[in-house]
Amino acid sequence: MALHPDRLLPADPGVRAIARRLYDGVAGLPIVSPHGHTDPAWYAENPAFPDPAALFITPDHYATRMLYSQGVPLEDLGVARCDGTRAVIDGRAIWRRFAEHFHLFAGTPTRLWFEHSLELVFGITERLSPANADALYDRIADAIATPALRPRALYDTFGIEVIATTDGALDDLSHHDAVARSGWHGRVVPTYRPDAVVDPEAQGFAANVEKLLAMTGEPATWAGYLAAHRARREYFKARGATATDHGHPSARTENLPADAAAALFARVLAGGADANEAEAFRGQMLTEMARMSQDDGLVMQLHPGSFRNHNPALFSAFGPDKGADIPRATDYVRAMKPLLDAVGNDPDLTLILFTLDETAYSRELAPLAGHYPALRLGPAWWFFDSPEGMRRFRETTTETCGFHNTVGFNDDTRAYLSIPARHDMARRVDCAYLARLTADHRLDEEEAHDLARELAYRLARRAYRL
Amino acid sequence: MALHPDRLLPADPGVRAIARRLYDGVAGLPIVSPHGHTDPAWYAENPAFPDPAALFITPDHYATRMLYSQGVPLEDLGVARCDGTRAVIDGRAIWRRFAEHFHLFAGTPTRLWFEHSLELVFGITERLSPANADALYDRIADAIATPALRPRALYDTFGIEVIATTDGALDDLSHHDAVARSGWHGRVVPTYRPDAVVDPEAQGFAANVEKLLAMTGEPATWAGYLAAHRARREYFKARGATATDHGHPSARTENLPADAAAALFARVLAGGADANEAEAFRGQMLTEMARMSQDDGLVMQLHPGSFRNHNPALFSAFGPDKGADIPRATDYVRAMKPLLDAVGNDPDLTLILFTLDETAYSRELAPLAGHYPALRLGPAWWFFDSPEGMRRFRETTTETCGFHNTVGFNDDTRAYLSIPARHDMARRVDCAYLARLTADHRLDEEEAHDLARELAYRLARRAYRL
Amino acid sequence: MALHPDRLLPADPGVRAIARRLYDGVAGLPIVSPHGHTDPAWYAENPAFPDPAALFITPDHYATRMLYSQGVPLEDLGVARCDGTRAVIDGRAIWRRFAEHFHLFAGTPTRLWFEHSLELVFGITERLSPANADALYDRIADAIATPALRPRALYDTFGIEVIATTDGALDDLSHHDAVARSGWHGRVVPTYRPDAVVDPEAQGFAANVEKLLAMTGEPATWAGYLAAHRARREYFKARGATATDHGHPSARTENLPADAAAALFARVLAGGADANEAEAFRGQMLTEMARMSQDDGLVMQLHPGSFRNHNPALFSAFGPDKGADIPRATDYVRAMKPLLDAVGNDPDLTLILFTLDETAYSRELAPLAGHYPALRLGPAWWFFDSPEGMRRFRETTTETCGFHNTVGFNDDTRAYLSIPARHDMARRVDCAYLARLTADHRLDEEEAHDLARELAYRLARRAYRL
Repeated sequence: MALHPDRLLPADPGVRAIARRLYDGVAGLPIVSPHGHTDPAWYAENPAFPDPAALFITPDHYATRMLYSQGVPLEDLGVARCDGTRAVIDGRAIWRRFAEHFHLFAGTPTRLWFEHSLELVFGITERLSPANADALYDRIADAIATPALRPRALYDTFGIEVIATTDGALDDLSHHDAVARSGWHGRVVPTYRPDAVVDPEAQGFAANVEKLLAMTGEPATWAGYLAAHRARREYFKARGATATDHGHPSARTENLPADAAAALFARVLAGGADANEAEAFRGQMLTEMARMSQDDGLVMQLHPGSFRNHNPALFSAFGPDKGADIPRATDYVRAMKPLLDAVGNDPDLTLILFTLDETAYSRELAPLAGHYPALRLGPAWWFFDSPEGMRRFRETTTETCGFHNTVGFNDDTRAYLSIPARHDMARRVDCAYLARLTADHRLDEEEAHDLARELAYRLARRAYRL
Repeated sequence: MALHPDRLLPADPGVRAIARRLYDGVAGLPIVSPHGHTDPAWYAENPAFPDPAALFITPDHYATRMLYSQGVPLEDLGVARCDGTRAVIDGRAIWRRFAEHFHLFAGTPTRLWFEHSLELVFGITERLSPANADALYDRIADAIATPALRPRALYDTFGIEVIATTDGALDDLSHHDAVARSGWHGRVVPTYRPDAVVDPEAQGFAANVEKLLAMTGEPATWAGYLAAHRARREYFKARGATATDHGHPSARTENLPADAAAALFARVLAGGADANEAEAFRGQMLTEMARMSQDDGLVMQLHPGSFRNHNPALFSAFGPDKGADIPRATDYVRAMKPLLDAVGNDPDLTLILFTLDETAYSRELAPLAGHYPALRLGPAWWFFDSPEGMRRFRETTTETCGFHNTVGFNDDTRAYLSIPARHDMARRVDCAYLARLTADHRLDEEEAHDLARELAYRLARRAYRL
Repeated sequence: MALHPDRLLPADPGVRAIARRLYDGVAGLPIVSPHGHTDPAWYAENPAFPDPAALFITPDHYATRMLYSQGVPLEDLGVARCDGTRAVIDGRAIWRRFAEHFHLFAGTPTRLWFEHSLELVFGITERLSPANADALYDRIADAIATPALRPRALYDTFGIEVIATTDGALDDLSHHDAVARSGWHGRVVPTYRPDAVVDPEAQGFAANVEKLLAMTGEPATWAGYLAAHRARREYFKARGATATDHGHPSARTENLPADAAAALFARVLAGGADANEAEAFRGQMLTEMARMSQDDGLVMQLHPGSFRNHNPALFSAFGPDKGADIPRATDYVRAMKPLLDAVGNDPDLTLILFTLDETAYSRELAPLAGHYPALRLGPAWWFFDSPEGMRRFRETTTETCGFHNTVGFNDDTRAYLSIPARHDMARRVDCAYLARLTADHRLDEEEAHDLARELAYRLARRAYRL
């Protein structure tokens, strides 16, 4: 197997040669990871990672969903049930189960990330199979017991310059504080993710808001609630945050008069809101957050369009984030209008839009980002964090909004070991795209080199104000 | 013209060489045709095919719609009117008309299928033109008079291993019985297609249901109606059926309580249902059919999203299936939820989803099929049974649901002579795709060979339980 | 920089060689420009163009929107405010501002058009940058003062055979008359664009209709209004018009009974119509226009799907057409049905459909155009008038409706100097597509040559009856 130096680069020899030169210019750049889901405790406490299955399989919804789709019960992969029980299965048995089904991942990014990680971190150049499953398990298990495989050491090995975590509004950020106190040189910044106190349909919404108000000493009024957000944002900002993140079912925004917004807040807090009111409240809060960003300079990110927990039987047994979130068609043109009418012309605001509905790229998102000063396009997300997904992202956005209305790459992952693989994939696919434009003389190679560096490194730093 | 051995393979010499090796490994595999519309009488009675126009043009809506779109009246192509009349035009005149317009098919799959059939079956390597129309007509007419061109002989010539027909729920399957009695070695299996007794908006729905109940001795109750379906499914299964097929305007499903379903059945049977109730009933029946499939093991296929008979003037003159069915945007995420909530987690159920809305592949269908154990994705269908359509199918599904949540190729045709051409096109396009993944090192060539065989042969057998 | 002779042609040497041969066969064909927005006064009065900024930047919404999206105020680009004021900024300062931001256009068609124009018209082969901005400004300013750069001379330089303008229904076409009287050999034909007298939501609708009726001496009745349109169409036709054009928010059509249409007309004229009635009226007028086209033979064009003036702050400051029109998802299958039911089967009618929603190509538009004799597909439009947009247009339409249900290229521009660049881009991209089909043996090269000429020249002449 051994990672081929030209993987993901165009097959035509002439284009590949260009792509290879472009890639060589960015392969060694530091990793800027402005949006992700690694655990801040890793950087604070620098623990050893657990066994290979717990490292690579059980928590990775990309991995478990594929096996589940082919009939493997989640219990067999070590996934814990909501009631706290867990099938009695050890890491080695889970690993063997995964090895039996590893052929399912042919053609998927999971396979590419996995093999990149095995080779880069563990020096493993064999393809996982039932025959070598035990041997590879042992090699990985041995390696992760060593200091070189601890999170802080890997931070350096991976060449990370800065990494953002995603943290609930109620989080005390104690791990971030601990990192800061420790004097360690790594830069780990939090991101303000207020969904649990913004979404009336979130579990425990009212209690969450109560806690938010208590933390900030604000009253249970609309003004108090907004002030509480402002206070928490400052708290995050003081710990290095440069961004907020918002995961909503749709891109709906609202810009209600203050009294109507206050009345809506009272209704959702009292628990009497219907689905439309809940959606309206979420939409109103996007505009409020944008206004707060105008004041405090935090970059805003919107991740809409996922139908969360589509499978109720699985959700009740295993809870959220188990591979059962499914994208839906997402409108931006009407949905974003209230927010854009309010703040879209502010060149000092940065609102980064993501999508799970690729049709929006050429039809809505590139035209919007190619006009509104406040808008930028986030990279290909989730199911589209893949070679073809990234290629289509560039092909459907560049001609309308250029490269500079995009923001570089997000790895968006909780799988720490996959981070270099993911950034490498993005760099290769972007270099492949730039090489094609160079080969047919839409760019000259010198500017392609410069653009490659923008896409791999500089745009992310600038867009996220890192 | 003479079919080029490298047709449809990538142009880059290195990638083409890989693709050629992959293709060489699957070119000779038997044809498994798990979904199609050939006439079972052909296998039972083994008649000579009629004249070249009746063989290639008049019944082929791909052919007639293109000529119609450019102003050729359907009468001139021998299409019969609903009133049973037909323009007085002989096969040779139709053939000449087609030859005059043959340039319209440049770049279409119809052209590729047609020329493949001419060369493979008739040894004709000239391009059809007004100049050679008569000569080719004569060659074809002569050939189809010979025993080698009868359906059973062609079954062997084409290397068919098994072929499914599509048969109404009320069909007595006498042709299938005749094939079985005949001792002929061919395997021709029926498919249970109950649309006419499931769709309240189908012509003669009430009479059809009455006939269904009479055939099975069941009462006109909801329970009786369901029992009648079960009986007919058993009847089909006893004659070799392994699958059902459902052609619906949308992917809407329902899972009503039994009494509500019974009440809805009574309403649609009485003819008083409105459009929404008709749609709800069809949706309820999809879930009922899925539950029956859980019991009897028949694989379920859903073909949604066609706006049938979009052209009322043409429909009233010529009836259905004349090229005036137009795809529409199709939602799966909400629409399939009632059914999936009920049966989606059953790994012993197989429900194969098709689409005419390609945007659903990356956004909805691959995520759904990459999660639910009961779901698989059918191949690119109808307007997308084409080189670019098949390529986009792979590019937009593989990264999310892999190859093993897809089911190989369906030729889906009533044009018997085109079957080898259609399977050959699919094999070539899939090998081209696999070769590209190999060339940029996403796959190694050994596994690409194995995947090529899966896509060309084994997946279809397994998915359809053939 | 110097335009590379192989720009936009496929990178693979074998495919490029084919593409080059195809392109060589069409590169020198005359330009047929059947849909555009150049100013007829240019041909009538043959003025010198103003300064380089006014020529290339200020009026070009592709250019200004990109800079605006990156924080450059429109005032800095010389864009006039609605109140008639304009920032005090000279052409040279605007040009410098543009040069500072020129890197934003990497990968966009604007860059390709701009550089093609600089080289073809001004012999400039350097890339614009802050360093050479002044020097290039001076070269262009000097050149446009010469007779060779006047509109009529450029008409010949560019090899234009015929060019259509787009003209409001109330326009007296005096410039077209002046061109005719002048004896100049150029062919400049008007196009009937009645939006201002058809759209109840257009500014000044009632006054516009009043003027229409006054111009034609018709009464303010439904019958009078239709007769007025017929009279104006004849007026346009007498001045060379062969087509009408309709820019609507959606593709909705209606075919109301005459009395209902008359009542709706009365309501919209009185100003009491709501949004749905306004939309219904526009839809009714599409069907009326189609019926008039059946009578007078004018080719009909429909450009739907743009959400105009999405940015109200910008609209109130600067007015329409400043880069703030955003595409939306557009349905054609249901929307076009009333019109198609009425006139879709008429092979003597030509209705050319455009879209800003690319998903409609393979799902709706190619299936519709591949069936209805009255329908043709317009080329990739606006944001999709680009290499990737044109490629996707061919890849998603050809297999279903062939080449002959498309109509060649439209430059659709008010940027006169970019016309050769735009046609050249379309010819290159189409030749690249045909070369790929040739390289994998879907076409033979001889027919690819013929198709290249169809796409570059003949289809536009035939479709627009020029």
